[in-house]
Amino acid sequence: RYTDQITDNISDKEAAKLLKKQAQRNHGRPLKRDSQVQIKEEHYSKCQGRDNSCYITLLLGEDWIFLVLLGLVMALVSWGVDYASAKTVQAYKWTYRALHPNVPLQYVVWVAFPLGLILFAASFCHFVSPQAVGSGIPELKTIMRGVVLKEYLTLKAFVAKVVALTAGLGSGMPVGKEGPFVHIASICAVVLSKFMSIFCGVYEQPYYYTDVLTVGCAVGVGCCFGTPLGGVLFSIEVTSTYFAVRNYWRGFFAATFSAFVFRVLAVWNKDAVTITALFRTNFRMDFPFDLQELPAFAIIGICSGFLGAFFVYLNRQVVLGIRRHKALSQFLTKYRLIYPAVITFCIASVTFPHGFGQFMAGEVRLETISTLFDNYTWIKHSGDTQILGKSAAWIHPKVSVFVIILLFFLVKFCMAVIATTMPIPCGGFMPVFVLGAAFGRLIGEIMASLFPNGILFDDILYQILPGGYAVIGAAALTGAVSHTVSTAVICFELTGQISHILPMMVAVILANMVAQSLQPSLYDSIIQVKKLPYLPDLGWNHISKYNIFVEDIMVQDVKFVSSNCKYRDLQAVLQSTTVKSLPLVDSPESMILLGSVERSELQALLQTHLSPERRRLLNREMQQKLNEAPYDGPWANLPKLKHESFAYVDEDEDTEEKGEVRERSGQTPPVLRCQATIVIEFGHLFSVKKKLMIFWLTCYKEQFYSIWQTVLDRWRKMKKMLLALAIDSSPFLCQIDAWEQEELNKNVCFDSCRVDPSPFQLVERTSLHKTHTLFSLLGLSHAYVTSMGKLRGVLALEELQKAIEGSTRSGVRLRPPLASFRDINRTSTNTKVGQGVVPSQATPSKFKLETFVQQSHTNLSL
Amino acid sequence: RYTDQITDNISDKEAAKLLKKQAQRNHGRPLKRDSQVQIKEEHYSKCQGRDNSCYITLLLGEDWIFLVLLGLVMALVSWGVDYASAKTVQAYKWTYRALHPNVPLQYVVWVAFPLGLILFAASFCHFVSPQAVGSGIPELKTIMRGVVLKEYLTLKAFVAKVVALTAGLGSGMPVGKEGPFVHIASICAVVLSKFMSIFCGVYEQPYYYTDVLTVGCAVGVGCCFGTPLGGVLFSIEVTSTYFAVRNYWRGFFAATFSAFVFRVLAVWNKDAVTITALFRTNFRMDFPFDLQELPAFAIIGICSGFLGAFFVYLNRQVVLGIRRHKALSQFLTKYRLIYPAVITFCIASVTFPHGFGQFMAGEVRLETISTLFDNYTWIKHSGDTQILGKSAAWIHPKVSVFVIILLFFLVKFCMAVIATTMPIPCGGFMPVFVLGAAFGRLIGEIMASLFPNGILFDDILYQILPGGYAVIGAAALTGAVSHTVSTAVICFELTGQISHILPMMVAVILANMVAQSLQPSLYDSIIQVKKLPYLPDLGWNHISKYNIFVEDIMVQDVKFVSSNCKYRDLQAVLQSTTVKSLPLVDSPESMILLGSVERSELQALLQTHLSPERRRLLNREMQQKLNEAPYDGPWANLPKLKHESFAYVDEDEDTEEKGEVRERSGQTPPVLRCQATIVIEFGHLFSVKKKLMIFWLTCYKEQFYSIWQTVLDRWRKMKKMLLALAIDSSPFLCQIDAWEQEELNKNVCFDSCRVDPSPFQLVERTSLHKTHTLFSLLGLSHAYVTSMGKLRGVLALEELQKAIEGSTRSGVRLRPPLASFRDINRTSTNTKVGQGVVPSQATPSKFKLETFVQQSHTNLSL
Repeated sequence: RYTDQITDNISDKEAAKLLKKQAQRNHGRPLKRDSQVQIKEEHYSKCQGRDNSCYITLLLGEDWIFLVLLGLVMALVSWGVDYASAKTVQAYKWTYRALHPNVPLQYVVWVAFPLGLILFAASFCHFVSPQAVGSGIPELKTIMRGVVLKEYLTLKAFVAKVVALTAGLGSGMPVGKEGPFVHIASICAVVLSKFMSIFCGVYEQPYYYTDVLTVGCAVGVGCCFGTPLGGVLFSIEVTSTYFAVRNYWRGFFAATFSAFVFRVLAVWNKDAVTITALFRTNFRMDFPFDLQELPAFAIIGICSGFLGAFFVYLNRQVVLGIRRHKALSQFLTKYRLIYPAVITFCIASVTFPHGFGQFMAGEVRLETISTLFDNYTWIKHSGDTQILGKSAAWIHPKVSVFVIILLFFLVKFCMAVIATTMPIPCGGFMPVFVLGAAFGRLIGEIMASLFPNGILFDDILYQILPGGYAVIGAAALTGAVSHTVSTAVICFELTGQISHILPMMVAVILANMVAQSLQPSLYDSIIQVKKLPYLPDLGWNHISKYNIFVEDIMVQDVKFVSSNCKYRDLQAVLQSTTVKSLPLVDSPESMILLGSVERSELQALLQTHLSPERRRLLNREMQQKLNEAPYDGPWANLPKLKHESFAYVDEDEDTEEKGEVRERSGQTPPVLRCQATIVIEFGHLFSVKKKLMIFWLTCYKEQFYSIWQTVLDRWRKMKKMLLALAIDSSPFLCQIDAWEQEELNKNVCFDSCRVDPSPFQLVERTSLHKTHTLFSLLGLSHAYVTSMGKLRGVLALEELQKAIEGSTRSGVRLRPPLASFRDINRTSTNTKVGQGVVPSQATPSKFKLETFVQQSHTNLSL
Repeated sequence: RYTDQITDNISDKEAAKLLKKQAQRNHGRPLKRDSQVQIKEEHYSKCQGRDNSCYITLLLGEDWIFLVLLGLVMALVSWGVDYASAKTVQAYKWTYRALHPNVPLQYVVWVAFPLGLILFAASFCHFVSPQAVGSGIPELKTIMRGVVLKEYLTLKAFVAKVVALTAGLGSGMPVGKEGPFVHIASICAVVLSKFMSIFCGVYEQPYYYTDVLTVGCAVGVGCCFGTPLGGVLFSIEVTSTYFAVRNYWRGFFAATFSAFVFRVLAVWNKDAVTITALFRTNFRMDFPFDLQELPAFAIIGICSGFLGAFFVYLNRQVVLGIRRHKALSQFLTKYRLIYPAVITFCIASVTFPHGFGQFMAGEVRLETISTLFDNYTWIKHSGDTQILGKSAAWIHPKVSVFVIILLFFLVKFCMAVIATTMPIPCGGFMPVFVLGAAFGRLIGEIMASLFPNGILFDDILYQILPGGYAVIGAAALTGAVSHTVSTAVICFELTGQISHILPMMVAVILANMVAQSLQPSLYDSIIQVKKLPYLPDLGWNHISKYNIFVEDIMVQDVKFVSSNCKYRDLQAVLQSTTVKSLPLVDSPESMILLGSVERSELQALLQTHLSPERRRLLNREMQQKLNEAPYDGPWANLPKLKHESFAYVDEDEDTEEKGEVRERSGQTPPVLRCQATIVIEFGHLFSVKKKLMIFWLTCYKEQFYSIWQTVLDRWRKMKKMLLALAIDSSPFLCQIDAWEQEELNKNVCFDSCRVDPSPFQLVERTSLHKTHTLFSLLGLSHAYVTSMGKLRGVLALEELQKAIEGSTRSGVRLRPPLASFRDINRTSTNTKVGQGVVPSQATPSKFKLETFVQQSHTNLSL
């Protein structure tokens, strides 16, 4: 089958060679699984063989189909979410207004409505897919780095995220749509690519997986606000370290298509007259600003930088603070809905228009952005509010507009910080965007009051445009929080005006400069809080990165397997370490690295070697030989005895495996009956243990002790039986043990073992900078340090992470070789256990990190 | 020195360990040069030791300083070029108008002025730096891929490019500024980084080099039109395959600063009133277009795709056509200035306003774009041209405006195709931009005539805006030619309006779809024409890329060096192959790959081993031993004799080295005198050879033959002397030969040889797709194919290139293992020689490819 597709192109001779090779692989050494490639290859040929329709799909360019489908689906989802949440908000407003004269009832509605929605969102997430909680960008950043987060890209998470997000947006809380949409689009892309792989195998390639995710992220941001350009750029900046330019184009295509459909849907639904920007501004075009206003723009940028860093800091401190406070976090873990309920209640109360809300434009809570980007100068119209339209909500008859904006900013800032820690799908982009717009507007209004007649330059009078300041502030603050510059592009697309391009770029860059030197980005901060395995960025060009070498940070004490080792050594190594893959060297003396073997492969090797099946097989072969042997010599006695004993025990284990113990226990000798009982008892004990754990965790002490008593009783009973069994079956057991000991002394045969023949290698003098580049370029989890083929040490992601954090934070600092080349798997388990004791579940499922496994594409051999 | 900088952070014990290590390195094995890293390390410590000012520079963040300086310099250059060329154009126009009634004189000026400037540009480039010719983007793409093009990034090229570009732009020919500016900015970045490396060594890192170039490209496009956003994106799309996101930010910073300064300079110079877009448009904002116009935009996109592909095809055919025509190309090579002169003459004549120029708006030749982006609908104002202003030039009293635009487009198309092949610095972006604008305008005017009253939708009347069509056409055509989508962003920034974002994105994407499936991009086409070593892109997701494996394309017959080989084997290998680096294996039996050694290192090893110095040293040591020996045993006789003979010959070679042959020749025996004469004769012959070469190349046949005679005479004389010498010195020579033969049988000692301990390795089942990714990610030139540590084959860039071209062009096609693992160096030399015989110098120096050397960072060990 494999050759069908190539014979028309290659000569018969080569085809014959290939056929022979394949035959060798499949039949010559039946246990040899050369590499996963072969399995895939078979898949391809199957796919090719099935029908020519596959080839037609190929010719049509399934890539286009995939991108178009992705764009279409995401546009529909985005529009659907927007539509549903808008309708919810309409209902909310209508109810609120219907109760007009009755202020207490209005208050109840104002608070209860979002409360219900948020609680629904939180519990829906919790029960359907806890992975749907949070922004999603930090996790995607980790996934794109090459780490597999389990259950993260499933249809369940998709449903949970979409439904809960709609509820969250409909509640009017300061949560954003863009982070969750990145996640939703990525799930969509992955699911779609799996669907497409039915037709064509291309989508199953590990490298293609990253491509799919990249496009997914771009579409996510692009269709969220209908900003294809900014979407692609933002997704690049936020999720990638190294970006394949070919995906740029594909992202653009999908995002544009998606944004286009999204806007057309709005036109079709009569929400918009034609395809225009989402928050269209209408600034004058001729002379939008004067050069003398630049200092004010620069101040916005620098302040935004500080504010952004402060936002990230506060957000992290809220989570860590609750986690540190043990009693509180335990309480919140027990009653999961209390945390979001309290937050929603507070936020809704504060914004109640008849209460404190009147001082922070509570009425326009849901159209804040369009009012902030308003074309009028509010301080000029504080007297008559007719012309302002909806923006009139910002003008309070008694309080100055400056105070209103400032209050709005401060309260909203705290609200946004806290709201983004709720256990619902929530992004931080939109709340920060509003904050930035408010801050910019504040500066703009101050400027307008300082220069009430505008600025005169070159005989042209430049009126101050506070709306322009608001746009710049929004871009700068979001840029500072996310450490990106493409927020500027998103702003252009959202407002539909590009006239402020230069001041905006200046402000965004200044904000980035300040924020990047103070704090990690919001997404990196969440990664740190969640302890996701991520490689931090290198930061500025410190000389230390070139002065620290791999030999300074590598682990020199490497556990290894040598090609001439015995099964006993293998057993010892497997018991002494928990790393996921072990290096295979030529011999302990030469230490020449041959490859790397996965732990599971080695375990399988050991188990197969000591398995009862193999024992039985060997025994049968031996028996056969003896039967074939013409004479009954001196050997006849011992093997025959052995055979009998083996056969006896083997049959027993066979039945045990098939779970037919009970039915047969009547006819079997006492030893077997004993064993059967033990098995049953063990099963019982385990089920009890589970119950015990639950009771222990939930602190029902009485139940715990009563059950503990029964456990102890049963344990004593079992001990007796085990003793009896040991005495009864000791001759058999001894024989098996002797056989095993004998087998353990044999040399390991690696033929049936899948060896990665070229694990990634570094040399001792590779600089930290280069190591970082390689790890992030290739998504490595670990690399072996070799010198002239000899294994010298190993460097795992963790060591690198620590070394970089050490070097970027405090200049040159050489770290002693870190003690552990620990399995990342184990570390994460530890973290989980640690969280079990000191539960950090302020936002319960948000911080429950699923066990993650290193993806197979981290080694270079497949 | 090395430890100074780290002792405050690490414990004394570690410091001592480090010191000891270093001492071992430096003194224990004096010849061992561990790796280049150590040399760099010394450089750092030197830098650190020199002064603390270095550290202060470091603290200040020299990265910022670098970026700001780069932005500033490039803005000044860009403004300077613009200013000078604008003044030239002004002078041109003024002269033309001053001769108003005299049409023949006007014609002479109209033609002579650009002719003079173009000829000046061509000859200036030719004499100062032939590398300055052409766009620069293809070469930079190659350089960023990891290939070193000699003399390409020097100050000389900078000066040549700036001066010649100014002249070229001033001539008004359809040549662009943006390609050359990418080149100029890259030179500027590299020179600046070299300057900065005086203060701090960071800039000398190979990886940093790519970073510097990336930023340079971004600044180049950014400051060219004052479009920082589009600049960065365009430079990413055009130059990179994999992009490091950290450079994105740095590029943005530098490009924004540069664009800002560029615009401020314009304001300061009273060219502009304030900072606005370069070609500002003034379309209505509210309802810029209707959905029903989308088919028209799509048609623009699709047609642009075809036109763009046709442009690239024609451009390549012009060059290849001239190259194929041997007599023509020889003629053009001899008289280099004829080609540009003819082209300039033709173009200037065609555009002469009183001749054919009147049918193609010849009057506004230099402000074409702003007229094409005009807000009025020309067909409506064909009667009165008052309101149109400068655009009135497009209205011909007798000819329809459609015909005018069509004529303009067709003629300009041919002009642009030919003009970009002239041997001056010229980009293709701007001419194509104008062409696209004209095409878009044409469609727009047609639409306006089809719907003279606009389109009615939802009670709103949408007037057709032909200017908007022009903008979209410009973006689509440039996108199609360059295979980028960021031209849309450049358009937004150039026009200062983002209202047409969706139709523009759709048009650009459609244009790209069509163009990418028909032709390579303009830059890739030039790369192919110039035969630069570049790895083509993978194109669409064909299954073949996953079905072809390294084993199908690798070279299995690898020349190698084994660690236990003899010098004789080394000599044989070196003589049998010309590859730049050879694999070092454990032994020919085991074939375990230990590392890779550069050819030059091996040659040095062999030469050192057989060198007279070593012979003398060994001899002296032997002598010393003998002297120290207490007895005159049976060994005394032979070595002593040997010693004498060695001493004699050695002294001779010593003097030869010091160049004191002539002074001593009087006192030396005849053999030595002979040798001295031979040396002098050889020197003479070589100088003559040089002369001969020059004459040969410049085809002065008479001189050539006369010199050839003298050479032959001298050669005969020398032959005689050599014979005499051989007879005289044969005993010594024989002894030396015997010693050499003896030494050749010794085992090679690789201690003093710099071995790359971990060359890049692949396995046989690595797919083509993955191999491509790795090669482009890491900028590899070759990789060894291993299996369980054993060397199986080698894969060079060339094989990969061929395999990809084979697989992308015609689906699945398995190539037989290619016959040659040829040195790229040699290949390029071959190409050059080939061009010498069939000179392809239509644009002479443009196609003279400098010998390029693979950059050292292509191996992973440093």
